[in-house]
Amino acid sequence: MTAYAAPLTDMRFVLDEVADLAGIAKLPGYEEATSDLADAVLEEAGKLAAEVLAPLNHSGDQEGAAFENGVVRTARGFREAYAQYVESGWNALPFDPDYGGQGLPWTLATVVQEMWNSANMSFALCPLLTQGAVELLQAHGSPEQKDLWLPKMISGEWTGTMNLTEPQAGSDVGALTTRAEPRDDHYLITGQKVFITYGEHDLADNIVHMVLARTPGAPAGTKGISLFLVPKVLVNEDGSLGPHNDLRCVSIEHKLGIKASPTAVLAFGDSGGAVGTLIGEENRGMAYMFTMMNNARLAVGVQGLAIAERAYQQALAYARERSQSAAVGAKDPTPVKIVNHPDVRRMLLTMKSQIEAMRALIYVTAAALDRAKREPDEAARARAQTTADLLIPVAKAWSTDLGCEIASLGVQVHGGMGFIEEAGAAQHYRDARIAPIYEGTNGIQALDLLGRKLLRDDGAGMAALLDEMRATLADLETLKGKEITALRGALGEGILTLEAAGDYLLETGKQEIAEAAAGATPYLRIFGTVAGGWLLAKGAAAAARRLAEGAGDPGFLQAKLATGRFYAENVMPQVAGLTMQVITGAGSTLALDEALL
Amino acid sequence: MTAYAAPLTDMRFVLDEVADLAGIAKLPGYEEATSDLADAVLEEAGKLAAEVLAPLNHSGDQEGAAFENGVVRTARGFREAYAQYVESGWNALPFDPDYGGQGLPWTLATVVQEMWNSANMSFALCPLLTQGAVELLQAHGSPEQKDLWLPKMISGEWTGTMNLTEPQAGSDVGALTTRAEPRDDHYLITGQKVFITYGEHDLADNIVHMVLARTPGAPAGTKGISLFLVPKVLVNEDGSLGPHNDLRCVSIEHKLGIKASPTAVLAFGDSGGAVGTLIGEENRGMAYMFTMMNNARLAVGVQGLAIAERAYQQALAYARERSQSAAVGAKDPTPVKIVNHPDVRRMLLTMKSQIEAMRALIYVTAAALDRAKREPDEAARARAQTTADLLIPVAKAWSTDLGCEIASLGVQVHGGMGFIEEAGAAQHYRDARIAPIYEGTNGIQALDLLGRKLLRDDGAGMAALLDEMRATLADLETLKGKEITALRGALGEGILTLEAAGDYLLETGKQEIAEAAAGATPYLRIFGTVAGGWLLAKGAAAAARRLAEGAGDPGFLQAKLATGRFYAENVMPQVAGLTMQVITGAGSTLALDEALL
Repeated sequence: MTAYAAPLTDMRFVLDEVADLAGIAKLPGYEEATSDLADAVLEEAGKLAAEVLAPLNHSGDQEGAAFENGVVRTARGFREAYAQYVESGWNALPFDPDYGGQGLPWTLATVVQEMWNSANMSFALCPLLTQGAVELLQAHGSPEQKDLWLPKMISGEWTGTMNLTEPQAGSDVGALTTRAEPRDDHYLITGQKVFITYGEHDLADNIVHMVLARTPGAPAGTKGISLFLVPKVLVNEDGSLGPHNDLRCVSIEHKLGIKASPTAVLAFGDSGGAVGTLIGEENRGMAYMFTMMNNARLAVGVQGLAIAERAYQQALAYARERSQSAAVGAKDPTPVKIVNHPDVRRMLLTMKSQIEAMRALIYVTAAALDRAKREPDEAARARAQTTADLLIPVAKAWSTDLGCEIASLGVQVHGGMGFIEEAGAAQHYRDARIAPIYEGTNGIQALDLLGRKLLRDDGAGMAALLDEMRATLADLETLKGKEITALRGALGEGILTLEAAGDYLLETGKQEIAEAAAGATPYLRIFGTVAGGWLLAKGAAAAARRLAEGAGDPGFLQAKLATGRFYAENVMPQVAGLTMQVITGAGSTLALDEALL
Repeated sequence: MTAYAAPLTDMRFVLDEVADLAGIAKLPGYEEATSDLADAVLEEAGKLAAEVLAPLNHSGDQEGAAFENGVVRTARGFREAYAQYVESGWNALPFDPDYGGQGLPWTLATVVQEMWNSANMSFALCPLLTQGAVELLQAHGSPEQKDLWLPKMISGEWTGTMNLTEPQAGSDVGALTTRAEPRDDHYLITGQKVFITYGEHDLADNIVHMVLARTPGAPAGTKGISLFLVPKVLVNEDGSLGPHNDLRCVSIEHKLGIKASPTAVLAFGDSGGAVGTLIGEENRGMAYMFTMMNNARLAVGVQGLAIAERAYQQALAYARERSQSAAVGAKDPTPVKIVNHPDVRRMLLTMKSQIEAMRALIYVTAAALDRAKREPDEAARARAQTTADLLIPVAKAWSTDLGCEIASLGVQVHGGMGFIEEAGAAQHYRDARIAPIYEGTNGIQALDLLGRKLLRDDGAGMAALLDEMRATLADLETLKGKEITALRGALGEGILTLEAAGDYLLETGKQEIAEAAAGATPYLRIFGTVAGGWLLAKGAAAAARRLAEGAGDPGFLQAKLATGRFYAENVMPQVAGLTMQVITGAGSTLALDEALL
């Protein structure tokens, strides 16, 4: 396996030219996010990722998390790495300064998250889950709950989890049956939860579980779900640790990937009930969950991007080092580095161009979340929220599907070595595979995009986004060069295609929702592909201007243009076929009787 | 994990209606391949696959092959299963009756091979490698070599291997350095070979290695490679086993998948040289290899199909058993089986339709190999050989790419359970990943299709194949129904697209071979997709006629039509975008300087 180096130049370019970090830093409360601070944060995070987390990625995978007698031991080095991560203050980056957070924008936190996940996805999952728990508490906890729990969760001394899934309640959260009986000032929780990421581990002294459960007499389905804070170890009023709560880890899963990240089965209340406190009001648990869902889904999209970046770095290093066969059509029989073979180049550029497209879309989505929170003008906040809501399912599903595809290409570039675990490419292929599944399967994301995002406002938000794309298209008219021409052509086609598919779904969704649903996944793919092309075009325009001005590294800027052109000519052509699928394909998806499958 | 049941109805349908088994059975030497015999063979093979091999698939993966002190121990049950496989005579199916073979057509052997690989790909690799060794010996061995080795290799009592790869010589076989020094009536072999499938194991008393090596003073590159038979255990003239040869297994690989199949590093000649005998003439080794390459590449394509079929069966069973969420748009909140959700249905039909397309293409390719060997008319043999040569790289690369994609969809259908190893879907995702790599990477297949198949005869063979497709198109004109209409439209478009992409490559290949090479992979994908659609259309036409006649199971025939329509409307639309890639995308693949990747 090879080292990881954070792609600081591209990260910074996207932040500046596409996600408008300078604009974010002008929002009230984000003034500290200056260009200098961003540089410092990115550089330091890059060091921790490269020097501490990345070297534990392969060993963590090989060793895995171990379970014995109810106790989970993480792989060698993870405890020390986590201690260093907490010590350096990284966990506090985007959180509330009143409780020890640094209050920096999600845009910046997202870039740093990309690094943790590229370096070591199994490790990065622990802070990712803590993040969700912190957000829930920040938004819905009582002042007492916040005072007692937030400081140590924000610092990372204690970690957090999300306890939603039960064996019969996966995508269908409303089917959960864990019970919560009121008792004095707290509740007693009884039930079993599965697939709990970092549900048990040895990295921290306490684990704060956010648990969905039903109180007696609660309505059926999602309307009868309440949210509870249930710690592994009870905490006294002075903040000191008390006795162990009535919950235990029954087992951890034997998984395809992210093996260093323990996925726990948790049993609550074997001895009468685990002590939990209600967050907010009864029966509002699902509504609360939505407040953290956007960030959590974006974070999983980041994993798709991150694993793709790591797979690319590894494949590129291998392709530059491995000699095999003469150059195609060459008289000289001397073997050349395989990076020079056209088919290998095609694979590498397929990886690289889509990675850059994903990075742009994800940072732009994070910026929209920041604006939705901090724009001084209410209408601007609402517009940003609409953009974020539209982009979130795409950032999650499109990026994680691409994460798998790109990790698979990374294996292929390695040839036979790709299949050998010691080489490391195979781990990315295995690790990447979870991201299209958890935090709402990609099919669920597509239905969310269709139902809650496109249909709910009758296409208004989407129309506004298409207008933004058209503005970029108009800007491209002012520039020259074969790369710009290619991007302009592809983007123009792409916008029309995305609009046509959306119009069809708006129409069909009103009459035949099942038929629209059958087209939801190809529609999301069109959306991601075109939106990625739009933002690559935006970046290319900036690169062309910088080149004309003589500002910046000409090699990097030229690569930006060439990569955009590759995407325009090799990736964007997919959308026409996908649109056919949306418009004419759904009927045949539903035509065959289930018994005849 | 779930059971495997051979899809006998579809296999038989494709044999009869698409691959023309009845026509094959009229060829001289294949008269025994009657309809009744085919039924018996398929049914019995299906039983062995389902009852003996499939139950060892998951346990074999979990246990893996073990290496200790130079000895490889296969997973529990493999020895007994292999003994039963040999005992029942399966290994001898397609081989020369003069040496104990049954002389049945490859068409039938291919169907049986699909079953072995669906049931247990790790197991099936052992006979697959023996097959290659037998073919080499049948075609190029001396009468003495054949007499001594073939009977026990054909029966399967002894197994065979292919020893091509060395650390510096993978795709570039010509770079190998293993030496062969003449000594009396034999050669002494010295060198190291890697990635040797079943290079060492405990299933048989002897392993017959087919080893590529260089004799002293041989020309550089592929023109100086000779082929040697080097047994693990030397054999006396009377056929009894003698002393162990001077070769040993150094280690076996720690792989992503096919873990029950030992992949060996073999050291030849640590104590002076392993005894080998020359096959054929010196320096003709690579030419001999080509005689087995078509069958071997087709066999790997079969693996792509087979693993996809297994993944589909498992995903379908899960989707029929798992309840989650109400039906989309339904008032009734009762959870339904997920097979009823449109997005799950889309995934299942994407799997099913492409599996049926692959099966048709693979059986048709096998039939072309049979005809190329046995057609009484020389021109007919040559035509069949051209067809086989064209289809082989497509059957290999397209089917194995799809194998990975379909195994990945199989994971996705399972949701969270897909990522848990006990469920079994993850194993298919891991196992499938090797097939695009070995027996010539899929990039090599695409270059083979472009260079040796399309360009070499200036598109003549391709033009003939397009004519065959047009004949099917004309036949569809005589039929009615929305499925036929959809297939006719898609096939008509597909033929034009495939032709346009090929014409462009024929033109470009003469001037800019690197640019043509950059388009080779998308071209192969177009080829596979359109050829698959062509053969599904052929099957659909037959199904429509059978339905009209009232012959056969109407449910199966209706499903055949509906599945064809799904493919026409959801898979075939990809080809337009791929054609853009071939025609306009190659320039940008090569534009960016390697240093800027």
